[in-house]
Amino acid sequence: MTNETELVNYGIVLYPAFQALDVFGPLDVLNMVSFSNRLNLHIIAETMDPVSTKPQVMNNSGSDFGESVVPTHTFTEPPEQLDVLIVPGGVGTRSDEVTAPVRAYILEAFPNVKYFLSICTGVGMVAQTGILDGRRATGNKRSWAWVTAQGPNVNWVPHARWVEDGNVWTSSGVSAGIDLMFAFVAKMYGEDLASELALGMEYERHVNPDWDPFAEYWNLTGSSEV
Amino acid sequence: MTNETELVNYGIVLYPAFQALDVFGPLDVLNMVSFSNRLNLHIIAETMDPVSTKPQVMNNSGSDFGESVVPTHTFTEPPEQLDVLIVPGGVGTRSDEVTAPVRAYILEAFPNVKYFLSICTGVGMVAQTGILDGRRATGNKRSWAWVTAQGPNVNWVPHARWVEDGNVWTSSGVSAGIDLMFAFVAKMYGEDLASELALGMEYERHVNPDWDPFAEYWNLTGSSEV
Repeated sequence: MTNETELVNYGIVLYPAFQALDVFGPLDVLNMVSFSNRLNLHIIAETMDPVSTKPQVMNNSGSDFGESVVPTHTFTEPPEQLDVLIVPGGVGTRSDEVTAPVRAYILEAFPNVKYFLSICTGVGMVAQTGILDGRRATGNKRSWAWVTAQGPNVNWVPHARWVEDGNVWTSSGVSAGIDLMFAFVAKMYGEDLASELALGMEYERHVNPDWDPFAEYWNLTGSSEV
Repeated sequence: MTNETELVNYGIVLYPAFQALDVFGPLDVLNMVSFSNRLNLHIIAETMDPVSTKPQVMNNSGSDFGESVVPTHTFTEPPEQLDVLIVPGGVGTRSDEVTAPVRAYILEAFPNVKYFLSICTGVGMVAQTGILDGRRATGNKRSWAWVTAQGPNVNWVPHARWVEDGNVWTSSGVSAGIDLMFAFVAKMYGEDLASELALGMEYERHVNPDWDPFAEYWNLTGSSEV
């Protein structure tokens, strides 16, 4: 199958205490796209050391529980070319120390990518950079107050599974990233491929971007669009 | 919150070309359980080298796309104690060379765990060991013919999102592992925690183990139970 979209080089940023499913939901969809289309993945972090999901704060349980993923590039020696950049969320987004190098890289990379995707609380971190200003975007619904406070000039959409605004796609919390990615694959590579992959992954997609029972649960049904 | 179940030490096996969401769907749920309950995670593989999702076969697309995860233990120097062992699926299960050391470890570990969970085509690999003989189990529905052929003495349940048989839980393909894990957490740690985590992850659970439109799609509605 020809990759008509010419989207070959994908990148994802990792930082300590990222949310595993924000990363591996969308990436597992792309892993399967890569079986039939030529795609390269670049995993970009502050250093080449493995990056753990383990929170450095918020964990008073005595647990030792997390997964570490190996980067392929660093923020200071990033891939030469990226067509698509993905920014996940996680509790790490709440630490300015953690996010400072991530935000610097996002600002540098954003102008050169064809598509920019962000998920969950990652959208709040992205909003801090200003690149969402004047755009429509959504994010994690339980953390909606925090997410929206990070970008007072963003046209926040409170009731949305995901939002597409030009080349910027943002999703609601965690598992919403899977629906965003299936929608992205459907648009870029065709609905047939998206449907086939969802069938293989036994995933019941939410195909309506306005589906959002979580916004309703948190009483976020009003619009903050300006 | 007290961990009344006394399930503290979790283990998951990794092998080359595992399916990312088989692993990180269930683990992301457990990552969040570990915020309020003391849980330890052990990631067990053949060596301490990072293990990649990248298929060694089945990929003629020219892609270079995959994620590598860092083990904490090896099959020959495994964790001293495991309460729960999780076995994911993936195209790696189709290679006897890949699965031989995994199956040897599963046979060794199984008698000593309190619960044994397997997902997707991982169930086929587990069936090869014989430990599912005489038990009810399900697995990936697109690969149903292959999965069931691996264990002629298993009581295969073709129409199921997941199946619980004593201390052995098995799930249908890929994303079904998320529903299995939420059901497991609900049973072991309480429905309140499972509901709260699904809300935070903005995940719409399938709470009925018999929900299975994929079995219907593949015309697997008949029962092979003996």
